[in-house]
Amino acid sequence: MAQETGAEVKSIIIGLTTLITQALSQTSEDQIGKLLELITTHRNSKILVMGAGRSGLVGRAFALRLLHLGYQVHILGDTLVPSIGEKDLFIALSGSGATKLVTTAVEAAKAVGATVVAVTSFPDSLLGRMADNVIQVKGRIMGGEAGRQDYFARQILGLHEPLAPLGTLFEDSCMILLDSVVSVLMEKHKLSEKELQKRHANIE
Amino acid sequence: MAQETGAEVKSIIIGLTTLITQALSQTSEDQIGKLLELITTHRNSKILVMGAGRSGLVGRAFALRLLHLGYQVHILGDTLVPSIGEKDLFIALSGSGATKLVTTAVEAAKAVGATVVAVTSFPDSLLGRMADNVIQVKGRIMGGEAGRQDYFARQILGLHEPLAPLGTLFEDSCMILLDSVVSVLMEKHKLSEKELQKRHANIE
Amino acid sequence: MAQETGAEVKSIIIGLTTLITQALSQTSEDQIGKLLELITTHRNSKILVMGAGRSGLVGRAFALRLLHLGYQVHILGDTLVPSIGEKDLFIALSGSGATKLVTTAVEAAKAVGATVVAVTSFPDSLLGRMADNVIQVKGRIMGGEAGRQDYFARQILGLHEPLAPLGTLFEDSCMILLDSVVSVLMEKHKLSEKELQKRHANIE
Amino acid sequence: MAQETGAEVKSIIIGLTTLITQALSQTSEDQIGKLLELITTHRNSKILVMGAGRSGLVGRAFALRLLHLGYQVHILGDTLVPSIGEKDLFIALSGSGATKLVTTAVEAAKAVGATVVAVTSFPDSLLGRMADNVIQVKGRIMGGEAGRQDYFARQILGLHEPLAPLGTLFEDSCMILLDSVVSVLMEKHKLSEKELQKRHANIE
Repeated sequence: MAQETGAEVKSIIIGLTTLITQALSQTSEDQIGKLLELITTHRNSKILVMGAGRSGLVGRAFALRLLHLGYQVHILGDTLVPSIGEKDLFIALSGSGATKLVTTAVEAAKAVGATVVAVTSFPDSLLGRMADNVIQVKGRIMGGEAGRQDYFARQILGLHEPLAPLGTLFEDSCMILLDSVVSVLMEKHKLSEKELQKRHANIE
Repeated sequence: MAQETGAEVKSIIIGLTTLITQALSQTSEDQIGKLLELITTHRNSKILVMGAGRSGLVGRAFALRLLHLGYQVHILGDTLVPSIGEKDLFIALSGSGATKLVTTAVEAAKAVGATVVAVTSFPDSLLGRMADNVIQVKGRIMGGEAGRQDYFARQILGLHEPLAPLGTLFEDSCMILLDSVVSVLMEKHKLSEKELQKRHANIE
Repeated sequence: MAQETGAEVKSIIIGLTTLITQALSQTSEDQIGKLLELITTHRNSKILVMGAGRSGLVGRAFALRLLHLGYQVHILGDTLVPSIGEKDLFIALSGSGATKLVTTAVEAAKAVGATVVAVTSFPDSLLGRMADNVIQVKGRIMGGEAGRQDYFARQILGLHEPLAPLGTLFEDSCMILLDSVVSVLMEKHKLSEKELQKRHANIE
Repeated sequence: MAQETGAEVKSIIIGLTTLITQALSQTSEDQIGKLLELITTHRNSKILVMGAGRSGLVGRAFALRLLHLGYQVHILGDTLVPSIGEKDLFIALSGSGATKLVTTAVEAAKAVGATVVAVTSFPDSLLGRMADNVIQVKGRIMGGEAGRQDYFARQILGLHEPLAPLGTLFEDSCMILLDSVVSVLMEKHKLSEKELQKRHANIE
């Protein structure tokens, strides 16, 4: 009985990884390359990462690796947030590109002159339009302002409803994408795993 | 130039998803099924999720979906943590199974009689040995107590160092696994995406 | 030498508690009573607490006690945030009443019909004007939109600059005020310390 | 009616601030001075702050001010935690001095050679005994290992039960104490409020 359910989960794993691979294959190499370039040019400035809900958690996971890579990175939503300015980079994650707390923060980031990168499914969303650079990661977002766009995404991706509910596809794809970015950053900065380990929390 | 780097990231995405698929193919269907069974039998009790660092973030992402599915779920490390007892479920994530703050919490959870499920790469770790149930997710953890075991994992998986540094493989695999568990839970509870959406934060 | 510095801190403690007592003596009994009334009438609905920075931390400390008192309380900014509706209560803390992420959230809370209570130094601020109820707690906030108002506050309170920098007076006063509210709530609900203790986290 | 309840809260405010003033008057000037000295000698190293529950929130509020003062401060429990070593300072807050996750972390901090300062009601607790320096702040903690000690504290302070339940007195006293420490640090570093404001988050 337990094994049967386990087998069901395993078939979903195959379906989900396939969807992620498909979604990421549509992300522009140029956009990804631009993200990397922006990160490396901010090696000595502050990088502020933000997202709401599960997108925020994926952003935090990325931020942790940027810390391990030696960046001065911070998370909007954590306790300790420094002031930022025109030399700094603001990375915002939002599938719909319409999350109010994210767009409000981006507006403030632009007002102080920071460079804004948006990771979103919808380049034409408010977030996408405000950002200096957009990395489009396909996904599907149900309800809210992204409702109509979502219908479109659904047609394209042909998702079976329970396979990747709500923002799942966007979030998981971002996790894989950003972890792959980390791998290339390691290489670019000639950092070994040992050097990352040295910056990893040792009180945990 | 940017495009070239983008292409590099894309090839890593392929490598990383392949690794994740391989790692998860080794996870026992029985163990996954048991996890689902334990979650559904705790439909009316509290579920407490815990992990340190990036594993903790993956645990949080899972907890958010359990909330959307209507569970009484909480995160150890968030501000609002309730008391738990023998009717409750404690889900701990730790690649190495040796993270002190996790094993300390598990010890306390066992002392109050809660059922403990461990998601870890090492069933023989302290965490694995304390848990009532273990879901083994392959990965590699460098340094610390898991050092020797890690060498073994490295041989098996044949990882190219910068492809998935530190706990990356474990964390990303857990993300995909647990999101697939969510999909099956939706089906089991006959919940549509719309019903999940209703429980999703509307102030964000 | 250390003792001398310690003595200096102690004299500041006297000054700071005096300021807090003065500030809170100016808070309207009627407004405090209304806050209590709103909380108790939401005994079986959700209460969402929000604030940025240190005000957010004070809000969290209050939320923890509401949890211990048996309320269904949540914190905007924590991982697990449920959806809220017209039956629910939103408590926002902001000294200046102008913090963007707070006013944005309040706008969304009002849009879904929730009752909004603002704890702020400035009833005429955007937050104050949007809220259904305001509890005014004197303090001083420097810079930003509250700059001019702050000058006024400075005149009234006659603060020596380093005694309570930035939002300190507002934050500390709110902490004392809300902890006193907790004490009265205990009495109203006839809850003993033991009963609070039972709901206190036992895994920590 | 509301006004009556408000008046009740106000009388508790007087009682609570009196208790806090009493509690802090018993804290040794020498211990406070030593805390300040340790902080200033770690001006160019890392400072890691930790506490569980409401003590953790008070620790976070202090950490935020240390950030505004220009310190390299981090919070154990936030997402971004760096590695620390023998040059670094670990500040732990725990009323009972027996909180497991805190003592476990302190043990790890000592193992890497960091200097540990404990803020606690019980210098003879496990935390107090492990710490290099102790600042005793009177309070009362009910239940758990501190149960017996708590009885003693109760006798000394003669608290009326609902006035300051659980750790309230410890937490509020620490908030006032540490904010007073901030004020003296501003003076020692000759920093104006304006300079603190510059380091204050501007995206919020």
